[in-house]
Amino acid sequence: MAIRIGIIGYGNLARGVESEISRCPDMELKGVFTRRDPSTLKIKTEGVPVYSVSELKDKTADFDVMINCGGSATDLPVTTPEYAALYNVIDSFDTHAKIPEHFAKVDEASKKAGKVSLISAGWDPGMFSLQRLYSNCILPEGNDYTFWGKGVSQGHSDAIRRIPGVKNGKQYTIPVPEALDAVRSGSNPTLTTRQKHTRECFVVAEEGADKALIEKTIKEMPNYFADYDTTVHFISEEEFAANHSKLNHGGFVFRSGITGLNGEHKHIIEYSLKLDSNPEFTASVILAYARAAFRLFEKGDFGCKTVFDIAPALLSPLSGDELRAKML
Amino acid sequence: MAIRIGIIGYGNLARGVESEISRCPDMELKGVFTRRDPSTLKIKTEGVPVYSVSELKDKTADFDVMINCGGSATDLPVTTPEYAALYNVIDSFDTHAKIPEHFAKVDEASKKAGKVSLISAGWDPGMFSLQRLYSNCILPEGNDYTFWGKGVSQGHSDAIRRIPGVKNGKQYTIPVPEALDAVRSGSNPTLTTRQKHTRECFVVAEEGADKALIEKTIKEMPNYFADYDTTVHFISEEEFAANHSKLNHGGFVFRSGITGLNGEHKHIIEYSLKLDSNPEFTASVILAYARAAFRLFEKGDFGCKTVFDIAPALLSPLSGDELRAKML
Repeated sequence: MAIRIGIIGYGNLARGVESEISRCPDMELKGVFTRRDPSTLKIKTEGVPVYSVSELKDKTADFDVMINCGGSATDLPVTTPEYAALYNVIDSFDTHAKIPEHFAKVDEASKKAGKVSLISAGWDPGMFSLQRLYSNCILPEGNDYTFWGKGVSQGHSDAIRRIPGVKNGKQYTIPVPEALDAVRSGSNPTLTTRQKHTRECFVVAEEGADKALIEKTIKEMPNYFADYDTTVHFISEEEFAANHSKLNHGGFVFRSGITGLNGEHKHIIEYSLKLDSNPEFTASVILAYARAAFRLFEKGDFGCKTVFDIAPALLSPLSGDELRAKML
Repeated sequence: MAIRIGIIGYGNLARGVESEISRCPDMELKGVFTRRDPSTLKIKTEGVPVYSVSELKDKTADFDVMINCGGSATDLPVTTPEYAALYNVIDSFDTHAKIPEHFAKVDEASKKAGKVSLISAGWDPGMFSLQRLYSNCILPEGNDYTFWGKGVSQGHSDAIRRIPGVKNGKQYTIPVPEALDAVRSGSNPTLTTRQKHTRECFVVAEEGADKALIEKTIKEMPNYFADYDTTVHFISEEEFAANHSKLNHGGFVFRSGITGLNGEHKHIIEYSLKLDSNPEFTASVILAYARAAFRLFEKGDFGCKTVFDIAPALLSPLSGDELRAKML
């Protein structure tokens, strides 16, 4: 029987989950839950019902795993523990500093309910975290480097759009090629914030706005831009719509370590992602972990998990025999 | 109490395990087992005893995990099942096609003995296998590409040295840069054997040997060289000793996949290793998995495992709380 999946929310990530379920032969989308009036939401999959989130408490018999597609800032910290009391739940909580607190709350709710939850699935946190963990275990003596981009930072784009006179704006985070090369060389460089990433902004200004002032405001914005080399381009609304609506992203994780009795041998582990669609890739990771969470639930291994707790074989629809024969 | 490690064998891999144990604060080298007369073997670590392999059956109380550092061709298929009846054992069995058979034998012995074993730890099989598994689970629709090198192929070097008139020889496997770029572009190329790797040979010829014949014999050797663009350099014994004694290696694993309702988004996952010392890196992987195997033994989860069965958190000396706070 297919794993019965529910989606909570219907933003970019939820739509990614909806599209990628079609690539998981052992899963079935059984419903989408929304805070809006369900009759106003038209989803892409034929024949799948839309429910109100208020109905979540009545549908526990119909779903094996719920994918909570809310935002990390204010939604997931409240709703994942709430849903974890009813369902096996996966989320993509990405506020790194608050993960321990979130974990504790979700773990308590899941254990009490006899359910499995898995938080912070995606690529960072998620696949990048896994690479950091594996490579730290393999090369205990060394340095970690994480670079993001080229891709859109939602937080920085929001910050630009809050500036008076700005009609629309998008910010790309870009790794500095020289910094990547320095890390790849094994020289274990110490890199400042400015040396690691540049920021490129595309801004649509209101008519008559003071562009020089907007540019200055962006470049001097503390935390967001002041510590970076930032470029600002003013473009038309048409160009913005044509060239800056994509959701691509990516990044790099390095471990640069040494071995040998005298530390005489260098090793570089490099992992990189180049993603046309950040939400669809994140959704794909979430679905693989939904499979694993359901398997743990069937084994009675309740509580909150992260990617660190999941044996890789649990992510695959193939059997152990098949995996050893084909992929080892 | 530290995990008490034993090493069986004392070749390159074993010496790598010996050096890398010093980077694992929770482990202690308690002995090296050899087929030679133990009194003739001088190891690098002070105060660690050398035993004969014939003593293995008498030392089961003194070791938590044995690292079997034998070769895959004829040694490991026989000895790992044998040692698995006595100890928790790790090996680096790398004959991909025979893994299922090896697994079955070791699994039976370990389960009967109430021990844990883990086979095929290293980087391929090992870390490369993990990348293939993770990325196949995340991007079910796509293509895998594995490239090896630049690094020494022991099998190909041996094949060269068996040619009459050859005094010494070394063969480097080199990924073709254009093939790497084609994969990185997301074009999902179909690549022939010749398009993926070139082979570069450094040969010391016996005095008076027919170099043209040696070169022809190498280049036309079926399976080993005939399907590749091969370059042969004749060099002096001095140059060979000075420049071709390193044990560096590496390689690349790619997954090039698509997402979206119409498969309209491309994603590239790239993992690469650049290793100054193949045996020391392999040893480092083995030690992380020795830690995990011992933890499974303590939990009573007996039998043979592979890297696919090990939750990443088990590889780390840090606690779950620490890992979530620092690396997720």
